[in-house]
Amino acid sequence: MTEPSPTAAVLIIGDEILSGRTRDTNLNTIARFLAAHGIDLLEGRVVGDRRDQIIGALDDLRHRHDYVFTTGGIGPTHDDITAQCVADAFGVALPEHPEALAILERRYGAEFNAARRRMALVPEGASLIRNPVTDAPGFQIGNVFVMAGVPAIMQAMLEDVSGRLRTGHVVHARTLRVSGVGEGAVAATLEAAARGARHLSFGSYPFGAGTTGEIGTQLVIRGRDGASVDAAAASLLDELAGAGIAVEAL
Amino acid sequence: MTEPSPTAAVLIIGDEILSGRTRDTNLNTIARFLAAHGIDLLEGRVVGDRRDQIIGALDDLRHRHDYVFTTGGIGPTHDDITAQCVADAFGVALPEHPEALAILERRYGAEFNAARRRMALVPEGASLIRNPVTDAPGFQIGNVFVMAGVPAIMQAMLEDVSGRLRTGHVVHARTLRVSGVGEGAVAATLEAAARGARHLSFGSYPFGAGTTGEIGTQLVIRGRDGASVDAAAASLLDELAGAGIAVEAL
Repeated sequence: MTEPSPTAAVLIIGDEILSGRTRDTNLNTIARFLAAHGIDLLEGRVVGDRRDQIIGALDDLRHRHDYVFTTGGIGPTHDDITAQCVADAFGVALPEHPEALAILERRYGAEFNAARRRMALVPEGASLIRNPVTDAPGFQIGNVFVMAGVPAIMQAMLEDVSGRLRTGHVVHARTLRVSGVGEGAVAATLEAAARGARHLSFGSYPFGAGTTGEIGTQLVIRGRDGASVDAAAASLLDELAGAGIAVEAL
Repeated sequence: MTEPSPTAAVLIIGDEILSGRTRDTNLNTIARFLAAHGIDLLEGRVVGDRRDQIIGALDDLRHRHDYVFTTGGIGPTHDDITAQCVADAFGVALPEHPEALAILERRYGAEFNAARRRMALVPEGASLIRNPVTDAPGFQIGNVFVMAGVPAIMQAMLEDVSGRLRTGHVVHARTLRVSGVGEGAVAATLEAAARGARHLSFGSYPFGAGTTGEIGTQLVIRGRDGASVDAAAASLLDELAGAGIAVEAL
């Protein structure tokens, strides 16, 4: 592998996430999307609808990662302040974008009003991100992709973002399912395997805790070289099975 | 209200969240728990199982908030590095905690081993957080509460945390459900209401986008004075209904 894979951060914007009213699902959707593109998602942030927080997080993240993906705060109501914050972070104006305006006029016809017109405000120099669900576009400025908070719309916007990204080497993963014992019973074997293959990552994710059902753990081996991952998974499976532990490859 | 309500941050630790393998639910659980205690959750972070990231985020958050709640990375496997990172962030040692050791010995009996013994390592000066599900405790050091990543365990640990927190004034919320029109149709009315009651917050959360079902938006009015919230909700409902919009109080 010659060039390192790109890195990314996600910034979730919205009081409703921090108040507990809404359970965020966008971070997971974006994480899976980035994994499929071989882009390393290194961190996530959740902030409220507050100017200082949005700008602070955005400026921090966009200088440290190849890409930043934001969700939320681009609707027509007064609490939607993301576009203004992004413009201020980049130090550019926030004019009406002619194409966004045309899209919104077409969408709303006689019901187009001042509030909806706010959704045509796009930071200078940004390009639009298509919204096939409700038309009101997101936008890209520099390495920042600004998307809607509604999950169905956010997910649709990722389609348009896809072609704009530099892709990396996809991370391969193999999972072994250990059952009947807790992760403490396999920890030493797992650690020895991890020490023997430092270019791979080995994780353990227990299940069944607190239930009356079966307990166990899923061991996940990850790395950018698929053959190494396969070999490490096969070897770990052999070793655990040889020690009399119930284990299967998923 | 004389004293400001306490503020808090949540730090979610785990590669499995950033890889997309696992969808985090702990942030939402903690958010609801804090809301019930009148504590303002101001931000969330998600980082991987990486020492520099964990320590960096922890040091940033614990100095800016009254409380920090972490989840993940306190199990028996080699990728569980949270306790060590917390000790290093606070500049203290990480000895075996006698009570934690006794709890684990009792739990595992003949199956107690070196990996499980790691779970007795607790930063000097920390107090234990009880785990009624699988016994292995979390801990509190200073204003930081370190909890398990498995949702059922994390939730149970919050019970023990509850009594240790300074509570604030609970935020009251009223929700109006607008149907048949998008949020752009009520944005101006909502903004005027918000301008008239700056001690309250007014949010709009659309639903139905991208489906063939009903569209609409939920308007949420929030504030620490319940009577003001009720009055603002009643007034907004009257105004919207008077304008011929289908709206009901939830």
